[in-house]
Amino acid sequence: MKTLHVTIPEREYDIHIEKGILDRGGEFIKTVFQGEKIAVVTDSNVGPLYMNRLRESLTVAGFQVCEIVIPAGESSKCKEQLFRLYEEMLSFGITRGDLVVALGGGVVGDLTGYAAATLFRGIPYVQIPTTLLAQVDSSVGGKVAINLPKGKNLVGAFYQPKMVLIDTDCLITLSERVLADGMAEVIKYGAIFRKDLLDTLTQITEKKELFAKIEEIVYTCCDCKRQVVERDELDNGERMLLNFGHTFGHAIEKQYHYETYTHGEGVAAGMVIAAEHGERQGITQKGTASRLEELLKQYGLPTRIPMTKEAMEDAIQVDKKGQGNILHLVLLEELGKARLVKTQRSNLWI
Amino acid sequence: MKTLHVTIPEREYDIHIEKGILDRGGEFIKTVFQGEKIAVVTDSNVGPLYMNRLRESLTVAGFQVCEIVIPAGESSKCKEQLFRLYEEMLSFGITRGDLVVALGGGVVGDLTGYAAATLFRGIPYVQIPTTLLAQVDSSVGGKVAINLPKGKNLVGAFYQPKMVLIDTDCLITLSERVLADGMAEVIKYGAIFRKDLLDTLTQITEKKELFAKIEEIVYTCCDCKRQVVERDELDNGERMLLNFGHTFGHAIEKQYHYETYTHGEGVAAGMVIAAEHGERQGITQKGTASRLEELLKQYGLPTRIPMTKEAMEDAIQVDKKGQGNILHLVLLEELGKARLVKTQRSNLWI
Repeated sequence: MKTLHVTIPEREYDIHIEKGILDRGGEFIKTVFQGEKIAVVTDSNVGPLYMNRLRESLTVAGFQVCEIVIPAGESSKCKEQLFRLYEEMLSFGITRGDLVVALGGGVVGDLTGYAAATLFRGIPYVQIPTTLLAQVDSSVGGKVAINLPKGKNLVGAFYQPKMVLIDTDCLITLSERVLADGMAEVIKYGAIFRKDLLDTLTQITEKKELFAKIEEIVYTCCDCKRQVVERDELDNGERMLLNFGHTFGHAIEKQYHYETYTHGEGVAAGMVIAAEHGERQGITQKGTASRLEELLKQYGLPTRIPMTKEAMEDAIQVDKKGQGNILHLVLLEELGKARLVKTQRSNLWI
Repeated sequence: MKTLHVTIPEREYDIHIEKGILDRGGEFIKTVFQGEKIAVVTDSNVGPLYMNRLRESLTVAGFQVCEIVIPAGESSKCKEQLFRLYEEMLSFGITRGDLVVALGGGVVGDLTGYAAATLFRGIPYVQIPTTLLAQVDSSVGGKVAINLPKGKNLVGAFYQPKMVLIDTDCLITLSERVLADGMAEVIKYGAIFRKDLLDTLTQITEKKELFAKIEEIVYTCCDCKRQVVERDELDNGERMLLNFGHTFGHAIEKQYHYETYTHGEGVAAGMVIAAEHGERQGITQKGTASRLEELLKQYGLPTRIPMTKEAMEDAIQVDKKGQGNILHLVLLEELGKARLVKTQRSNLWI
C-alpha cells in the first residue's frame, strides 16, 4: 500500500492507494469518522460492480448505510441531481455529524463532493474513485462542482475530503475508452512536471505492462497533484499549471455538448493545441507537440478534433481562469516543465 | 463612522458603519476591488429605494454595473432564484476577477453571498445590508445559504465578504414590523453577551430615541458577532451561542411555512421558550424569561406563538446543529451569559 498525506492548513487527509482496498473501506473510514450514518453515492455503472463489497465492509464496521444511485454520465453533474442528493440525504436523516461517500468516477466525485460541501454548509466526505481519471485527478485536491448550461464546473467549491481510498483493481473493469480518458491526465502530469513518467509510458507496449505499473503511476500523479494543491489550494497560482490543455479541452467538450468526447479526449487534443501554440510563440521547444501527439495516440487518444477558431474563442469566454479579458494559458517550455502565460483571447492563433 | 476589522486567518475584512455611506459605496469598494464589472443583486423593495444612489456611486468610481432584482421575501432564498443569479451574472460576462454586491436584507445577502461563494468556486462579494436584521446579524460572519423545502438554510457555505458597508440611514424606511424583526436579534446579543445593551434598550421609550442610538447599537452587535466569528468561524463551538432562540425559532418559522412569522418573531418566541426551559432545568436564573418577554413586547415582538410539542420536535429534527440524536441547545445562565447544553430531543419539555 502507498499512502500520501495531504496537508492543507487545518485540513489534512490521507490518500491510500492499494489493490483491493475497497473491501477494507469500513476499517479505513472508522479511523476518520466516529458517526453513525453514511450516505454512499454511486452511479448506475459502478454501483452494480462495487457497491455490495463496500456496503458489506461499512456494515461490518458498524455503520448505517444509505445508497443513492445517479445515472452514469456527465449529464448527472447537474442541478437536478444535486438537489435530488440533498433530498435523499435529508430523508435518510443525515446530520452535520454524519458522512457522505462518493464511489465512482469524476462525475460521482464532483457532484457528491459538492453536495457534501454545501449541505449544512459542509459535512465530511470520503472519495473512493473508481476510474483512472478520478484516481489521478478529480478525487485529489478538493475541487468539486456541477455544470451549468453555459459551461463545465461553473458552480462549485474547494472542499477537501476526510480521506481518499484508491483501489487500482477497480481499473480492470474500465473500457478501453474510459481508461484512455484517464491516461490523458496521466500524460498531462508527465508533460508539466515529470518527463521520467513520459519515458516510462513510452516504453509500455501492452495493457498488461501498464497494469503491472499502475499503482506506481497513480501514486506519482497523486503525489504531483498533492504538492501543487498544498502550495496553492485556491487555484490562484501554481495550481493553474494543472490546467495544461484544459482551456482548449473544456471548449471542445462544450462545443460537442459534453457528449461526443470524454474529458480526457478533449484535454488530449487541447494539450496538442497548447503545445503547438507554445511552439509558434517560441516558448515551447520545437518538436514537443509531435512527441506529445505520438504518446497520446499510443494510448488511444484523439489529438485532432474539428472545431473552428471562432467556436473555440466563444467557448473559452466563460472559462473560470479568465480574469476580465486576460486569459491564463498553460504552456510548456519543454516536456516536464510548464509555465503560466497571460494571453489576450484574440492572440491565440498567432 | 465606525469601523470594525474582522480577522479570520487569510480573510480579513472591514465592516464600515456610517449614516449615508451608501453614497460613497464606489469609493469604499475601490479600496478592495480592482476589477471592472460589478453585479449588484437587490430585491423589489430595496431596489427602488436605494439602487439609483448606489449605481451612481459605483459608476462615478468607474465600474461597469449590472443590476439583478429578485422578488422581495423569504421565498426567493430558493434554488430557482439561485440559478437565475448564476445565469444573469454569466450573461453579464462576469469572471472570477469581478465582484458581486448584495444590496438588501438577509434574503438578498444570503442568496447573493451563496451565489458568490459557489460561482466559479467563489468570486469576491460585498455586503450592503439595508435591514436591521441584516446589519446586526446575517451580513457579518460569512454564513450564506438557501432554503430547501425540508428546512431553512440547509444548503450553504461559510464565505467571507471583502467588505461590509452599513448605512444606518436605510433603517428609516423600514416598516415597524421589519424593524422589530431586527430588534429580536439585537435583544439576543444582549441576552447572551451584553446585559448593558438590554439596560439601554429597556430605557428607550420611543423610536426617535432608538434612532439616535442606532449606530452605537448596530456597532455593539456587530462587534459581538465579530469576536465570536473570529474565534469560531466554522460554527463548531462558541459561534453556536448566537443560535440562542434559533432552534425553536427556526421550527416556528418552518411550521408556518416561512410566511406567517418573520425570522425575528420566531427567534423572539424561541428565546422565551429556551429561557423557560432553562429555568425548569435550573440552569437559567429565575425571572429571566419574564424579563426577556417584557423587553421583546416593548419592541413589538410576539413571545407566544401557538405550536404543539409534537410539531416542534418534528421541525427541529433536521436542524443543522443536531449531531446524531443529540441536540445542542443554547441556554442562558442569566441575562448576558449563555452556554451550550447538550439535550436529548425527548427531554425538551421536562
